[in-house]
Amino acid sequence: MQRKNHLHGGNIYKAAKELNIPYDRILDFSANINPLGFPPIVEDIIINRIKDIVHYPDVQQMELKEAAADYYGTDSENLMPGNGSVELINIILEALRPNKTIIPSPTFSEYAISCKSRDIETIFVNLKVNDFRFDAKLFDNLKDGITPNSLLIICNPNNPTGKLIPKRDLAAILKELQNKKSYLMLDEAFMDFVDVDESMVRFIKEYNNLIILKSVTKFFALPGLRLGFVLACPELIKKFHTLKDPWNINTFAGFVGTEVMRDKKYIDETRKYISQEKVRLWENLKSVPGLEPLYPEANFVFIKIEGKVKVSTLVESLKKKGILIRDCSNYMFLDNSFFRVAVKSREDNDILISALKEVINKEVKKGSL
Amino acid sequence: MQRKNHLHGGNIYKAAKELNIPYDRILDFSANINPLGFPPIVEDIIINRIKDIVHYPDVQQMELKEAAADYYGTDSENLMPGNGSVELINIILEALRPNKTIIPSPTFSEYAISCKSRDIETIFVNLKVNDFRFDAKLFDNLKDGITPNSLLIICNPNNPTGKLIPKRDLAAILKELQNKKSYLMLDEAFMDFVDVDESMVRFIKEYNNLIILKSVTKFFALPGLRLGFVLACPELIKKFHTLKDPWNINTFAGFVGTEVMRDKKYIDETRKYISQEKVRLWENLKSVPGLEPLYPEANFVFIKIEGKVKVSTLVESLKKKGILIRDCSNYMFLDNSFFRVAVKSREDNDILISALKEVINKEVKKGSL
Repeated sequence: MQRKNHLHGGNIYKAAKELNIPYDRILDFSANINPLGFPPIVEDIIINRIKDIVHYPDVQQMELKEAAADYYGTDSENLMPGNGSVELINIILEALRPNKTIIPSPTFSEYAISCKSRDIETIFVNLKVNDFRFDAKLFDNLKDGITPNSLLIICNPNNPTGKLIPKRDLAAILKELQNKKSYLMLDEAFMDFVDVDESMVRFIKEYNNLIILKSVTKFFALPGLRLGFVLACPELIKKFHTLKDPWNINTFAGFVGTEVMRDKKYIDETRKYISQEKVRLWENLKSVPGLEPLYPEANFVFIKIEGKVKVSTLVESLKKKGILIRDCSNYMFLDNSFFRVAVKSREDNDILISALKEVINKEVKKGSL
Repeated sequence: MQRKNHLHGGNIYKAAKELNIPYDRILDFSANINPLGFPPIVEDIIINRIKDIVHYPDVQQMELKEAAADYYGTDSENLMPGNGSVELINIILEALRPNKTIIPSPTFSEYAISCKSRDIETIFVNLKVNDFRFDAKLFDNLKDGITPNSLLIICNPNNPTGKLIPKRDLAAILKELQNKKSYLMLDEAFMDFVDVDESMVRFIKEYNNLIILKSVTKFFALPGLRLGFVLACPELIKKFHTLKDPWNINTFAGFVGTEVMRDKKYIDETRKYISQEKVRLWENLKSVPGLEPLYPEANFVFIKIEGKVKVSTLVESLKKKGILIRDCSNYMFLDNSFFRVAVKSREDNDILISALKEVINKEVKKGSL
């Protein structure tokens, strides 16, 4: 599977070149990054650590691991840092070498790409037929197909739909998978933005078939630094370590990651802001004629376009205004009537709403709707 | 194979903790980093790019690839950047899935670790019996064992020995491997420090069974940033891309890497300095009683201890003076009479020589030698 350049959001460098404007003038709703920007302490940490890049990064990263263990509510023997989550997905697949993966979709496309590159058989479960919800009923239909050493991959809350599976449902699925000697890989990349506690981290201590992915990138607005974690039982973590580059975490990511995860003020402010603003954005999106946004559990909104206007028309018209949204037509089981937008600052969100209204009104006048 | 913490040099953070001194007071001869420090432009680039870590790194990295293509003398379709060379080694093994790897040793231990983690059969060729030289004679002995889809892994100049294999020898080996439908992975991590042109890069255009690794880390003194390249024919590069994290290069590594590879003044100064100072250090090491240094082709010296003093005694005594050297006893086929030191500043190298003389004299008086 060749990865295409337009496969992911957040490519401001490409858009800036196309539009011939500086990339910091682009309003990027296509990447789901904390709109508060990174914590203020980050700049000082980086400036103070520039001299240290002349040394190899710390191989042990004990301070980073301890900060992460505190932040996620586990022990440092239960986690390993990665250079972003895709590195960790590859390591997990290498370590487990599953006979089969099962991926409820649409979801983050890198899971399927990593499986395909390794010739691992993948079954895609269509979430669209069930209102984008993965629940016990949908899992029941699958159960017979789960042979030993299968791997179920779930993103929770799911990207791009923003749907959240409650803990009690996942606990039942996890138990069933354990009975079948199979694994659950749970990508909680966006869980930090959720206002209720639905993380499965505490189950790591009970279940050796549970693997959880975490992203530091998105919540702390540092995607350029690259930092994520995998959480699992110590036996799996040890196995993952043998497959990892000993210096996979760059010097800045190590020092910055350690500090930001302890920044309780920033963490609280972000949760409070997203919790309110996502609802305001969702309601404003509902008021745009022809748009049907799903209720957002995380920091982004998934939207269905009703009527004849195509997502490509929206994407192109907004791009001319310097606004990027995430065309979702290349996700499994979706078509050209879906897109995703991040929750950004109140001001930026209002610009998006106005622009959407303007573009859609113009299309209506042209008779497309 | 569990990777042990003391497996590599350059762990100043661990040493500083043990000695209870700040890590920037340690004289680290155990990591082979350019002693001139990183180019002066690096600091400004990083400070100017801090604001950009709020965005994902550029997925395409066209500018970085073009700068690297110019620097290495190839085309951008012939290379792919990596988050350090270990990530790239893993990707290469994933892509080729060799039936067997052949590793002339001692050499960089991560090749064998990556093979072992993937259950790939590995044959280690003992370089010690041939004065640490890998030549046509040694290769001839191996030839019959090379079955289709074998992978020969050579580090050139070799780490830790500093021995260089000339192009004409490698060209013959490459041709023979092509006849046997097998591959050569050539790690040229230290080639930039060599004063003669023995790089095999131009053979990439003729041979689709040649894969070359390059490190930006060591020559430009940026190991904390993480940046390396793999060079190969476009078909292999495309395959490697499907196995790579799209954002594996962090924002700073992308921008800094692009600029430093164009810094001709720094490149020339480094080559000139290393070319002279490595010979001076080698001669001074020869003057220490009981030490037999090999002639260094790159920026480090490999040393055999004659007599009864053990490398562990040297390591511990020097560490108490805040000096780290690389104990080579855990390399394949080596024992506790080998160590490696990097070429550092003239002043630091003289401190090392004095300290070595002092420690060894003390041992001689104790009757160890």
